[in-house]
Amino acid sequence: MSRTDLKKFDCSVAQTLDQIGEWWTLLILRDAFHGIKRFDDFQEQLEISPTVLSARLQSMTKNGILEKRKSKTDGRAFEYVLTEKGLDLYPVLLTLMAWGDKYSPNAAGPRMELLDKKTGRPIQSIHVLSEDGRRLSAKDVYVKTAAGTDQRMASLINYRAKA
Amino acid sequence: MSRTDLKKFDCSVAQTLDQIGEWWTLLILRDAFHGIKRFDDFQEQLEISPTVLSARLQSMTKNGILEKRKSKTDGRAFEYVLTEKGLDLYPVLLTLMAWGDKYSPNAAGPRMELLDKKTGRPIQSIHVLSEDGRRLSAKDVYVKTAAGTDQRMASLINYRAKA
Repeated sequence: MSRTDLKKFDCSVAQTLDQIGEWWTLLILRDAFHGIKRFDDFQEQLEISPTVLSARLQSMTKNGILEKRKSKTDGRAFEYVLTEKGLDLYPVLLTLMAWGDKYSPNAAGPRMELLDKKTGRPIQSIHVLSEDGRRLSAKDVYVKTAAGTDQRMASLINYRAKA
Repeated sequence: MSRTDLKKFDCSVAQTLDQIGEWWTLLILRDAFHGIKRFDDFQEQLEISPTVLSARLQSMTKNGILEKRKSKTDGRAFEYVLTEKGLDLYPVLLTLMAWGDKYSPNAAGPRMELLDKKTGRPIQSIHVLSEDGRRLSAKDVYVKTAAGTDQRMASLINYRAKA
């Protein structure tokens, strides 16, 4: 499936996948959240081919997820730094991680601890919450069309109503 | 990158991507959350080739995300139904959707409304929360090694400490 195909779905999930729906991109993101900025460091950490890495970094920069800028410590080197748009992908990474923790755990225990800088305490795991703070599963939620629903999406949303 | 490559990363994100890190899989999941169960309905909704759809459904079934079972209404037909493991991917879909809503909106408005079955009220958007309920961004969180951290992950986690 090419990116062109994905664009035809006027769906927020598809629009996101159009920009990050490729595992290398998500692993590069993961490393960027761990503070990696330099081409060589991404390459060493991911054991990724320079050609693939270069293409992915270029596309993430073009999409405004990373910003390419000169290194402050070495004027000849470049760094790829998460933009605000990139930083906003943090919940996506955390939900991917939580599911991996649950269904593909490491027998020795958690693979990392995520701690709140302010308090040093573990952060909460991510949940879908109701307006009044109850934890919801997919089965507790229903979907309705809204102002931005196109015909294709309406057919998807109405499928459940019909089924 | 083949799935074999992804397995080498003992990382919860990589382990998840090994199972769902491919956009067709995530769009199939999206449709399954909308209640789609039948091969023909997935195909019609996604305009996906039968060969690709069949391969993806098979891999999702093998990974325990979908269960293939005989239709209750038509004994000759099969249905693909989300398992509990599959249902647990709901937060992943919602975080993908929220980011798409924010950065690739439809000018006419939201593409759908997500409502709480119990109250009929909109659900909360997904946030990373501290133990005491404050909303956190990636910059508010730090990472430490834990019992299940392997050498590769330790090098990633310690990168920030060093940088």
